[in-house]
Amino acid sequence: MATLTIPEAIPSPAEDCEQLRKAFKGWGTNENLIISILAHRNADQRRAIRRAYAEIYGEELLRSLGDETTGDFEMVVLLWTMDPAERDAWLANEAVRKWKPSNHVLIEIACARTSVELFAVRQAYHATYKRSLEEDVGAHTTGDFRKLLVPLVSSYRYEGAEVNVALAKSEAKMLHEQISEKAYNHEDLIRILTTRSKAQLTATFNHYNNEFGNPINKDLKSDPKDEFLAALRAIIRCICCPERYFEKVIRLAISRVGTEENALTRVIVTRAEVDLKVIKDAYYKRNSKTMDRAIAHDTVGHYEDMLLALLGHENA
Amino acid sequence: MATLTIPEAIPSPAEDCEQLRKAFKGWGTNENLIISILAHRNADQRRAIRRAYAEIYGEELLRSLGDETTGDFEMVVLLWTMDPAERDAWLANEAVRKWKPSNHVLIEIACARTSVELFAVRQAYHATYKRSLEEDVGAHTTGDFRKLLVPLVSSYRYEGAEVNVALAKSEAKMLHEQISEKAYNHEDLIRILTTRSKAQLTATFNHYNNEFGNPINKDLKSDPKDEFLAALRAIIRCICCPERYFEKVIRLAISRVGTEENALTRVIVTRAEVDLKVIKDAYYKRNSKTMDRAIAHDTVGHYEDMLLALLGHENA
Repeated sequence: MATLTIPEAIPSPAEDCEQLRKAFKGWGTNENLIISILAHRNADQRRAIRRAYAEIYGEELLRSLGDETTGDFEMVVLLWTMDPAERDAWLANEAVRKWKPSNHVLIEIACARTSVELFAVRQAYHATYKRSLEEDVGAHTTGDFRKLLVPLVSSYRYEGAEVNVALAKSEAKMLHEQISEKAYNHEDLIRILTTRSKAQLTATFNHYNNEFGNPINKDLKSDPKDEFLAALRAIIRCICCPERYFEKVIRLAISRVGTEENALTRVIVTRAEVDLKVIKDAYYKRNSKTMDRAIAHDTVGHYEDMLLALLGHENA
Repeated sequence: MATLTIPEAIPSPAEDCEQLRKAFKGWGTNENLIISILAHRNADQRRAIRRAYAEIYGEELLRSLGDETTGDFEMVVLLWTMDPAERDAWLANEAVRKWKPSNHVLIEIACARTSVELFAVRQAYHATYKRSLEEDVGAHTTGDFRKLLVPLVSSYRYEGAEVNVALAKSEAKMLHEQISEKAYNHEDLIRILTTRSKAQLTATFNHYNNEFGNPINKDLKSDPKDEFLAALRAIIRCICCPERYFEKVIRLAISRVGTEENALTRVIVTRAEVDLKVIKDAYYKRNSKTMDRAIAHDTVGHYEDMLLALLGHENA
């Protein structure tokens, strides 16, 4: 359910490098050529291109791309070209360094990736920043957010489909009691959200809804301005229905006065190879217009072209 | 600095299996034959033997060993034959299910392994128990111990040698303040111990000693009966001087009235391929007698033979 489109006959990495080099040459940059190559290669292919580029020209492709592009287009091209784990490590580091409670990027990376992918992010974080992700999260956050985010980014959730029904019932009850008492930072609530498998949590939330009459996220909206509650809701959405979580991020990024390009870029590049088609469907269902049209309306130039290419537009 | 000895010419896994099968055959078991093979094969070789055994005889080697051996000898042979990560997952699960504050096995596994090894334990835990290690630790422990142990077993510490000296100073000061105020469960103290790299922590503890006049572990001994303090000291020893930590486990296991075989077995099998020689040196330094002699004095029969074989006795 990716949107990425790849041509049937793919040039060799060396040929792609040659074309990219052409795009960088002379006055100005041929952005369309860059898009026509990179926006139509998967992660393995982009990795091979980066390796070949470094070998042939003795330069890092990311550096050349950075030199030759600017603004939002630069950001989307660089992030897209990175390895998924390397990109997430970069996004996590940005989020940690400029951390504020309303920033949900760490939650997204911790909860809307597989356990193995999250661990790969932690490895990439070591390699790039010479520290551990949980170390930086622990050092840059405080209070309840720290209690929540450190175990969240350290988790290695079991990914099997097994569900313990009795446990789902007892933990749904536990969550309901704590939410009723507004004990949102209760250590059991945090423990359940940060350690249980996604299958187990989904069963727990279903039981919560059946038994107590409301979806858990509705009960976690008692104060719409509380940022800790918003973080808890984001965790639950990333775990149970990531496509709806991402749909909302894109909807809000577009609907703001002045589009939030960083959020838009982040979601498109991180999901184009994963589930962007499903997110597009969720967007259409929620907004009665296509995401592609909405994005095209709110963005311009090569940035728009690149996003549309990643959204699956063949001629972009 | 392992003690494991391996013959120069090693039989093929199939030949080893044939000999093991012979050892199991007929009335009684030939324990010496089992020891002469398994106690002189490294982890890769034992893995190959298990694979070959399952293929040739359609049975699990661990099951056959369990059927043919008993008591402490059974325990040491089974644990030794397991893969290191599988063994640690088993030890961690035992420790979690029967958890009590004085049990330091989780600390040992979280702190006296490399980051990659600890992650392999978490993977093996998934595969065996269909849950995550941190999930079970969170569900079976409570209070301050939970606050300490969940991040400890979830950690993926950076392993480079880089040290931030300013950080070591400021965190040594922070630790000193919290310890002076007996705020042993302070979230910063737990954060520092559970997320910083071992190189960074060693620098922090050195600075603590230089600046405040005592090794940190001495200041953490204000109440020798406090089990939370004992856990903190175990963490620090496992990080800074694992050989002295393990020396003490063995010393106490032997010196008790009635040897604590489980602890003795655990340390010998988990360290024989790693650093048991260094632990033996530490033991001699501390007790003015060899560990081999002390162990031989306190154990009997095939159990003794197996331990001595793992301690490097050629003729065992």
